[in-house]
Amino acid sequence: MSELRQNPMTKEWVIMAADRAKRPNEFGHIHKKHERKVHDELCPFCPGNEHMTPPEVVRIPATEGEGWKLRIVPNKFPALSPECFPAWTIQRTLRSVKGSGAHEVIIESPDHSLCGALLPFENLITVLRTYRERFKQLSENPHIAHVTIFKNHGAGAGTSLEHPHSQVIASPVVSSPLRARFYEAMRHWDEFGECVFCQTLRDELDEDKRIVFNGHEFVAFEPFAARSPFLTHIFPRRHMASFGDVRDSELEELAGVLHNTLWKMHSGLNDPDFNYTIMTAPHHESGTRHYHWYLEIVPRLSEVAGFELGSGTFINTVLPEDAAEFLRKVKIAQTHFANEFAGVV
Amino acid sequence: MSELRQNPMTKEWVIMAADRAKRPNEFGHIHKKHERKVHDELCPFCPGNEHMTPPEVVRIPATEGEGWKLRIVPNKFPALSPECFPAWTIQRTLRSVKGSGAHEVIIESPDHSLCGALLPFENLITVLRTYRERFKQLSENPHIAHVTIFKNHGAGAGTSLEHPHSQVIASPVVSSPLRARFYEAMRHWDEFGECVFCQTLRDELDEDKRIVFNGHEFVAFEPFAARSPFLTHIFPRRHMASFGDVRDSELEELAGVLHNTLWKMHSGLNDPDFNYTIMTAPHHESGTRHYHWYLEIVPRLSEVAGFELGSGTFINTVLPEDAAEFLRKVKIAQTHFANEFAGVV
Repeated sequence: MSELRQNPMTKEWVIMAADRAKRPNEFGHIHKKHERKVHDELCPFCPGNEHMTPPEVVRIPATEGEGWKLRIVPNKFPALSPECFPAWTIQRTLRSVKGSGAHEVIIESPDHSLCGALLPFENLITVLRTYRERFKQLSENPHIAHVTIFKNHGAGAGTSLEHPHSQVIASPVVSSPLRARFYEAMRHWDEFGECVFCQTLRDELDEDKRIVFNGHEFVAFEPFAARSPFLTHIFPRRHMASFGDVRDSELEELAGVLHNTLWKMHSGLNDPDFNYTIMTAPHHESGTRHYHWYLEIVPRLSEVAGFELGSGTFINTVLPEDAAEFLRKVKIAQTHFANEFAGVV
Repeated sequence: MSELRQNPMTKEWVIMAADRAKRPNEFGHIHKKHERKVHDELCPFCPGNEHMTPPEVVRIPATEGEGWKLRIVPNKFPALSPECFPAWTIQRTLRSVKGSGAHEVIIESPDHSLCGALLPFENLITVLRTYRERFKQLSENPHIAHVTIFKNHGAGAGTSLEHPHSQVIASPVVSSPLRARFYEAMRHWDEFGECVFCQTLRDELDEDKRIVFNGHEFVAFEPFAARSPFLTHIFPRRHMASFGDVRDSELEELAGVLHNTLWKMHSGLNDPDFNYTIMTAPHHESGTRHYHWYLEIVPRLSEVAGFELGSGTFINTVLPEDAAEFLRKVKIAQTHFANEFAGVV
């Protein structure tokens, strides 16, 4: 018999369809492992091809020798651009705003082959620090309402570019699904006097059925009402509304937990396409007590169909309890991980 | 320069990314045309294989000879089932409900090959009448909060079964994205004293840039803030909150408009995967003045990526104005359409 579960943070309902369930190990065959080159001469993000991107906004030089460790460049076909003012036009029911904002690409490494889970721990710390700094910089613009940092890995997750990269989009508006999250969190605070994310994390730790990593500063878990197979949340234990407030010491542990989780998905689910996104309050609302930033990873193992589009209810065929148990059991290769994870796992 | 547009019915923002745009005719090559058999002996929905499905709930006999024209059967792996009571469990933040409800398959024709756009007009009238009757029947159950009727066509739209079919899911809960639509519509009524859907339809007809079909009872158009390429709405002109209130005469025109629209997508976009869904108020709220049912068609021509998942903002690379112009120009084959459409086009 199936069960409906409600996401306490969004009030979305998810049908946990146990009778339709695949076992976690049935996902392994879906994706084929790719052999990836260290350098691809046609790739616009590879060293030597810097002229193929618009002029860089940020460059972090390599620790040794010449060259770079990380670059930020404007997207060549930006969805939003800093070159215009966000003028609003309101004609009867039709509202539009000029496409003002920013759309940037973070090239995470000069090495073309280090996509997704394979990026070394040290690079990932640099990437996360860059996320935080760029998030704060773009948030200073009074025309920017929200900054989204995300990664698309694989064609099924919306990118055909292999080279390890993430993206930042700074938008002059807040869309209703995001506003609804903030509103639900505020309403929870008004009803219970507590951040719903802090309370959810405590409930997940108490139940102890869906935890993947239980760290000092961060907890990775499969949420109770995960709307798709292996959807994973990484929550900071400390209450912070804005990702911009994360500390250096916290980012180091986050890099470890994120790296481990991506590696377990890569290895256990055979390099699935995935997205991850930093879900955060806008930095100008960093003091708020009812919102709490977190990182969401969505492996793309199922299709959204007409039911989900029409009802806003999702059907998940893998119980989060089973997904968590599966991920906990995936061994972490020594070649990819050093001893710094001993304390985290 | 791109433009952000707000959906007046949901307050979702969509980035119309003109600089990233594909021309409508670039979509033609994405999908390969399939040759489909009239009968597949392995298909559980083909005549002769009735034993492969659970016992049927509804059968409409063939007009001539033996056999059937349409069947409704419970889904073999139902997401929700009528065999249990929707008991709620509330433990701290964690809410769950037993998977009570219904999940049925409407087998639209005995002919395996008539998928999607190819189903004849007469069959489509029967299918739409069946939708309406089943919607009303399932809505009578006091445990049912909402009934979703939808079609998935093609693997990219969430089904691997070729045989023409749609599905019905009757759920004991309303998920927050759906509740948010009702709330926005109510708020619009409170602010303007008018149904936002009626007003949107009038604005679309006044602008006359995104109309695909302008019928006596129904209008098909590409909405101003369409969140994906060729997303199409079919609105009834007459204000009705519930799909259950549609009249026989209206259903006949709807069948024509739906058939024409699907055929134009099939022919012009080379048989794309698609979903359609009937967006409606629950039938027990059929008297409400602020909601208005409609049919939404979503060809699956783009991927949702990390930005959409994180921000609730969509990026559409085809302007709805261009999509409407493209669809208007696709010729309708004489073999598929009789003269009854002359008045509609």
